[in-house]
Amino acid sequence: MERLPGFRDFYPEPVPHKDVWSADARQFIFGKWRETARRYGFREYDGPPLESLELFTTKSGEEIVGQLYNFTDKGDRAIALRPEMTPTLARMVAAHERAYKKPIKWFALPQLFRYERQQKGRLREHFQFNADIFGESDAAADAELIALLIDTLRSFCLTAEDFVIRLSSRNAWQEFYERGTQNRERPTEGEYHFYQVIDKLERTPPEETERKLVALGFSLVDVNRFIEAGEPTLELKAMLDNLAARGLRDFVKVDYRVIRGLAYYTGPVFEAFDRKGEFRAIAGGGRYDNLVKLVSGGKVNLPALGFGLGDVVLLELLKARGLLPQFDGGVDVFVLIEDETLRPASLKLIQDLRTAGRVVEYSLTPAKPDKQFKRAQELKAARTVMVGANSTVRVRNLDTRQEKIGLAAEVVGLLD
Amino acid sequence: MERLPGFRDFYPEPVPHKDVWSADARQFIFGKWRETARRYGFREYDGPPLESLELFTTKSGEEIVGQLYNFTDKGDRAIALRPEMTPTLARMVAAHERAYKKPIKWFALPQLFRYERQQKGRLREHFQFNADIFGESDAAADAELIALLIDTLRSFCLTAEDFVIRLSSRNAWQEFYERGTQNRERPTEGEYHFYQVIDKLERTPPEETERKLVALGFSLVDVNRFIEAGEPTLELKAMLDNLAARGLRDFVKVDYRVIRGLAYYTGPVFEAFDRKGEFRAIAGGGRYDNLVKLVSGGKVNLPALGFGLGDVVLLELLKARGLLPQFDGGVDVFVLIEDETLRPASLKLIQDLRTAGRVVEYSLTPAKPDKQFKRAQELKAARTVMVGANSTVRVRNLDTRQEKIGLAAEVVGLLD
Repeated sequence: MERLPGFRDFYPEPVPHKDVWSADARQFIFGKWRETARRYGFREYDGPPLESLELFTTKSGEEIVGQLYNFTDKGDRAIALRPEMTPTLARMVAAHERAYKKPIKWFALPQLFRYERQQKGRLREHFQFNADIFGESDAAADAELIALLIDTLRSFCLTAEDFVIRLSSRNAWQEFYERGTQNRERPTEGEYHFYQVIDKLERTPPEETERKLVALGFSLVDVNRFIEAGEPTLELKAMLDNLAARGLRDFVKVDYRVIRGLAYYTGPVFEAFDRKGEFRAIAGGGRYDNLVKLVSGGKVNLPALGFGLGDVVLLELLKARGLLPQFDGGVDVFVLIEDETLRPASLKLIQDLRTAGRVVEYSLTPAKPDKQFKRAQELKAARTVMVGANSTVRVRNLDTRQEKIGLAAEVVGLLD
Repeated sequence: MERLPGFRDFYPEPVPHKDVWSADARQFIFGKWRETARRYGFREYDGPPLESLELFTTKSGEEIVGQLYNFTDKGDRAIALRPEMTPTLARMVAAHERAYKKPIKWFALPQLFRYERQQKGRLREHFQFNADIFGESDAAADAELIALLIDTLRSFCLTAEDFVIRLSSRNAWQEFYERGTQNRERPTEGEYHFYQVIDKLERTPPEETERKLVALGFSLVDVNRFIEAGEPTLELKAMLDNLAARGLRDFVKVDYRVIRGLAYYTGPVFEAFDRKGEFRAIAGGGRYDNLVKLVSGGKVNLPALGFGLGDVVLLELLKARGLLPQFDGGVDVFVLIEDETLRPASLKLIQDLRTAGRVVEYSLTPAKPDKQFKRAQELKAARTVMVGANSTVRVRNLDTRQEKIGLAAEVVGLLD
């Protein structure tokens, strides 16, 4: 029986086939995500992988349904597997924000799902590091969030030569749009369509962009001039100064070509890219000050901002830059049992070592000494330990080949 | 908007409402599960939360569909959210077992789903620690697996006075069944029905059990005599000796009332219970030597055994025994910014401390000194640090109230 198309199996290293993924690499990535978020004072949360379809259509409109992994459940409810975390988070924050001091700084590591028309090799799920701040409208919060994103990428040993955060502003574009339309009628959704054109600028032939812009009453020349000037807004200026004070200025640049497709962003927006431009965006985010109000039906109003960083592009980048470590089981001790009469004493020793926090392996059943030793080497065990007569043990360091002999009761001390 | 019935939201502590769950407690539990599994040399894997419905009906028959969270996807596939991990694991092992040395020792922490007729407060998902061994038929593997279960529960400071593993054997019951039916016709599914009666023994009135047993050609007296004798099979004896050698004998007892409902178990089976009998089973597992063959359509044949330990009963037990720690954000340092001209220098300090691995919080925007200090106390920060004139810093231990003054560039050393 096969797994469903677009889903991944995660195996322990060494990964046995090119069509399956590394569970160790995934845990390595999750570990760095968690550890960096905690250093920044972010607290972990999680919600259900399934939500009512309405939660997602409220936020993103009915068009999103075409991309959702949605279905009808046995209770005739319209359900979707979450395509992003923000609606769940906005729902959770709206329900209990009064119990938390502001700013709320939370993170999660959700698995997200989509169901588009099948394209070969296209995944229908991925994992994402989501970090969000609620209750602070000052640009200091945007800088804190971007610093977290930078340090998350740096935790994998990526440098300013590997990636850059392209910083932009919905406010700047809104002003541009309003300036350009101030003396004429503004068609419904005109602003949204204008943002869509900017969002697709880099992936669209200039003639097509020009045609669309003219239809909206703009010109490509004016748009390009605005982008090339790249004059930071006061808000972006404050963020840049804040990041400069932290020594992180080299990791960001103003780039108004970034605008973020989603309708709900309201202020500064940003995307992280590899400097060589080989991969899709590594991460993206920005302010969405109106979403909590929308999701709570007007009951709660909190400024908000956040980013999402997926596991798939990050993994591709780390592989390409040679930044994935070799993974193994981290076996500290392989216990050799050469004399089966000593198996009970060896089991006691194994128990003691594990109780002391060591990763311990051994042969479950009788095996020839050379076979056991070979297995210890395959597992890259740091040491072998063998119980001898009179409750002694022989500890061997497999790197240095040094041996120590001591009492079984003191084996933990012999490992240092 | 509300979350779906039977699903959980996980919030950072302090948990704001009795209807939501603690994300910190969940991560605490996951951490212990992972850490103990690794000490035992188990490697982590994961599979998709969705599988084809057929994977589950192949293993458990069509009856299981009534309890599954199943639906039809947009590609008209019959799909189910996984109700247990074992079918996925058997599929994964069957696909790539040749790439791994035996025994394969793997674990996972999946979220599992079910959709039964709604009962108030009944959850439709939970998390489970799954540990399995493939490729070893000796009872030494069963003992290793049970030792892992014991040490997992002990990692939460549960003792032999809190829980016990009730050890039983499908082989023993199979022999009992065959002995009892040797001179007469054995109806189809008779053995399966007999096991179901034993499985429900403790929850069924004796008269009803007696009636069902008689219909199958047995008597309650004989069954009870067999249970009370509790004579361990050779296999169980080997497991008990092995566990005794590890010093874990007090955590297990032979109890033939345990038989495990699922059809696929083949050898030793076991369940963990709290000693006071207040809760449902904490964990359960056993041998299922035929499942890989079944799932692989006969291509791969590997002996196998495993257990599942859920998060919900465990959490109830830990709460009842007062074994859940107090959770907070673990803030190492709260940086006080009393003079806004020193904010850039403070941001630099914050960056240095976080780069050194410390959990650092501060006020994103200007705030009165006493308000900042109060926030540091609320967050249970271990220390406050304040940048002063001439690149000095003042470090204050909030427990001992001791203060140190030094250079900002050497702040990390001042924390020790």
